[in-house]
Amino acid sequence: MAKASPEVRQRALREIASAVERRRAAVLARSEQDVANATGKLGAAMLDRLRLDDRRLDGMIAAIREIADAPEILGRVEHQELRPSGLQVARVRIPLGVVAMVYEARPNVTTDAAALCLKAGNACILRGGSEAIGTNRELCSAIAEGLAAAGLPAAAVQLLPSTERAAIAELVKLDDLVDVVIPRGGEGLIRFVVEHARVPVIKHYKGVCHVYVHAAANLERALAIIDNAKTQRPGVCNALETLLIDRAIAGTLVPRLIARLGGRVELRGDPTVIALGGSAVHLATEDDWHAEYLDLILAVRVVEDLDGAIAHIERYGSSHTEAILTEDPAVAERFVREVDSSTVIVNASTRFADGGELGLGAEIGISTSRLHAYGPMGAEGLTTTKFVVRGNGQVRQ
Amino acid sequence: MAKASPEVRQRALREIASAVERRRAAVLARSEQDVANATGKLGAAMLDRLRLDDRRLDGMIAAIREIADAPEILGRVEHQELRPSGLQVARVRIPLGVVAMVYEARPNVTTDAAALCLKAGNACILRGGSEAIGTNRELCSAIAEGLAAAGLPAAAVQLLPSTERAAIAELVKLDDLVDVVIPRGGEGLIRFVVEHARVPVIKHYKGVCHVYVHAAANLERALAIIDNAKTQRPGVCNALETLLIDRAIAGTLVPRLIARLGGRVELRGDPTVIALGGSAVHLATEDDWHAEYLDLILAVRVVEDLDGAIAHIERYGSSHTEAILTEDPAVAERFVREVDSSTVIVNASTRFADGGELGLGAEIGISTSRLHAYGPMGAEGLTTTKFVVRGNGQVRQ
Repeated sequence: MAKASPEVRQRALREIASAVERRRAAVLARSEQDVANATGKLGAAMLDRLRLDDRRLDGMIAAIREIADAPEILGRVEHQELRPSGLQVARVRIPLGVVAMVYEARPNVTTDAAALCLKAGNACILRGGSEAIGTNRELCSAIAEGLAAAGLPAAAVQLLPSTERAAIAELVKLDDLVDVVIPRGGEGLIRFVVEHARVPVIKHYKGVCHVYVHAAANLERALAIIDNAKTQRPGVCNALETLLIDRAIAGTLVPRLIARLGGRVELRGDPTVIALGGSAVHLATEDDWHAEYLDLILAVRVVEDLDGAIAHIERYGSSHTEAILTEDPAVAERFVREVDSSTVIVNASTRFADGGELGLGAEIGISTSRLHAYGPMGAEGLTTTKFVVRGNGQVRQ
Repeated sequence: MAKASPEVRQRALREIASAVERRRAAVLARSEQDVANATGKLGAAMLDRLRLDDRRLDGMIAAIREIADAPEILGRVEHQELRPSGLQVARVRIPLGVVAMVYEARPNVTTDAAALCLKAGNACILRGGSEAIGTNRELCSAIAEGLAAAGLPAAAVQLLPSTERAAIAELVKLDDLVDVVIPRGGEGLIRFVVEHARVPVIKHYKGVCHVYVHAAANLERALAIIDNAKTQRPGVCNALETLLIDRAIAGTLVPRLIARLGGRVELRGDPTVIALGGSAVHLATEDDWHAEYLDLILAVRVVEDLDGAIAHIERYGSSHTEAILTEDPAVAERFVREVDSSTVIVNASTRFADGGELGLGAEIGISTSRLHAYGPMGAEGLTTTKFVVRGNGQVRQ
């Protein structure tokens, strides 16, 4: 795969998009069957993730085409210098090798992951949720067809035939064959992978994202951002989970917050918030500060100041995404410098912590481990660099 | 540590260099004691690595000062762009966090690793070989003194108190406390770390480095490069281990190779080399193609052409460093593109695969895993980037 030219890899991706398009009826029929098999076994949210319809399939096909037409990454020279020895040293972008994706019910991950891996010159091994196996098989047939049409080995993208969890445990031990494993899904799945892996793992367990409203925030804007971060799509990892409010403005903000979100969002506050909000707020417990609700629930805490906010985030944060809302640039800069989450945002919604929004193109995942990738990760995150050294007879003294 | 200013970290490093200087007599006395304790238990090469003298200590102190004065890395903006949403997105370099170094007899790793970690804003936990424990304790007292003199916590660099191997197994499981472990030493130690680690590991098992002499090579230069790559320092990982010779020039090169290296280097060849070299060459077995001799022994094989050389490297190489010697630029470019080792060299000695020579400054290690770092790794390799996003009220649609 690494030796295939950019044109051949681009053609393969376009052929894959066309093959999925051609198999549309079969894919949707398989999906319907998968959903029927899983009904009664999965909750409504998981069933919804499992289900494909024309609109979702259109989105998957469009994503493959977008990845196909994105700028080429491989061979890019990241750094070049002439050393005193006369050696010309460059760092050149190359594929990682074999990427294993381990995920749950969402079949769109199958085409997204395959396309991003191929864009970056990698082979990939996919292990989707057992509930989606019919849909995934059909999608992988389309992928194999597209690869073959471009003259690339169809085996460059493989679906793990077994749906047993034990197969994951075996897969992630193969450190001579697999270069990285990227688990996506619930914390249980991710912990299972980490527990058994000898292959390097890129992951995030959860997203307990914070917004801190500083004393010098524009409160009108703050309310709009909080609303968006919490309610625009509450089930995703970059949704707001805990709101921190500066004591100086709590008296003003809490009633306005209740007026804006009350009825739509359950608020769980510390005693100060309760004192200001009365019966509209439930009392938060220690568990609430750790919670990734993925639901229309918001934990709210009053902090003394910037240091109090940073200390809370250090203790309860998940290194995913935190935002500060303030009109004071010096305060914003301290927050940016001292909060070491993978994405730190000033005066915007946490929902922007996303590969597409941050300019990476499609996203293969978000890493909160600090090694290799930290934050949203696109096709470039699926590459590494090698040193290329050109000389004219140099020997070392 | 991440919050300490560049000036404070630089001052700490200079103070550490001075503290080691002040404790010179004590360090050397401890080293002498360590060597005396290990005599009879370690081989000559290991005893030599263990031993410090004035000249080596001078080198260690100079290395700390050089790291202190190297350009600052933290806070560097690696990429910046204005998104259509109006968000200003930057990737800013930050420390990894807590780095664990697990190594063997060489006490210079203690000061090198501590200095590189501090340069990059990390805390570090050192576990040197039990044979060097006296020297390492003295060096770590000097490091603590230097940190304290700059107003930084002395605990930012800690020596693991236990010299038991079981302590390593515990250390590398602490994935909530340690961000990365870098083992350096023999393959046994590295496999032990990988086996027990839940923390990400950056490593290389061994360096089976190849030089391929293409038909269009300048043979005079080739002989000088081969000699240098094999004999200048045979005990290190970037020394040449297997020489691949193009069939077209084998008849000319093999006799000249024997004339140049015979007597100094034991040659182990395939039957073609034996046929050309006679009794000056021993017959190589399959094991020789896998061997990292770290000694004055050279495996020699005749290959048909560039493809034969690439195939041999793919099968037996260790992803460390390979060189091609040729005056044909098209052939050199194919070798550079298709050999995916961490360092690929054209017309120079493999001995240049080194952080200092490639412009990284001092080197904390060499990685042949492809994740995070691939090839020589300096202070920048001990950092990562976070996304910093600046907006003015953006919410996601």
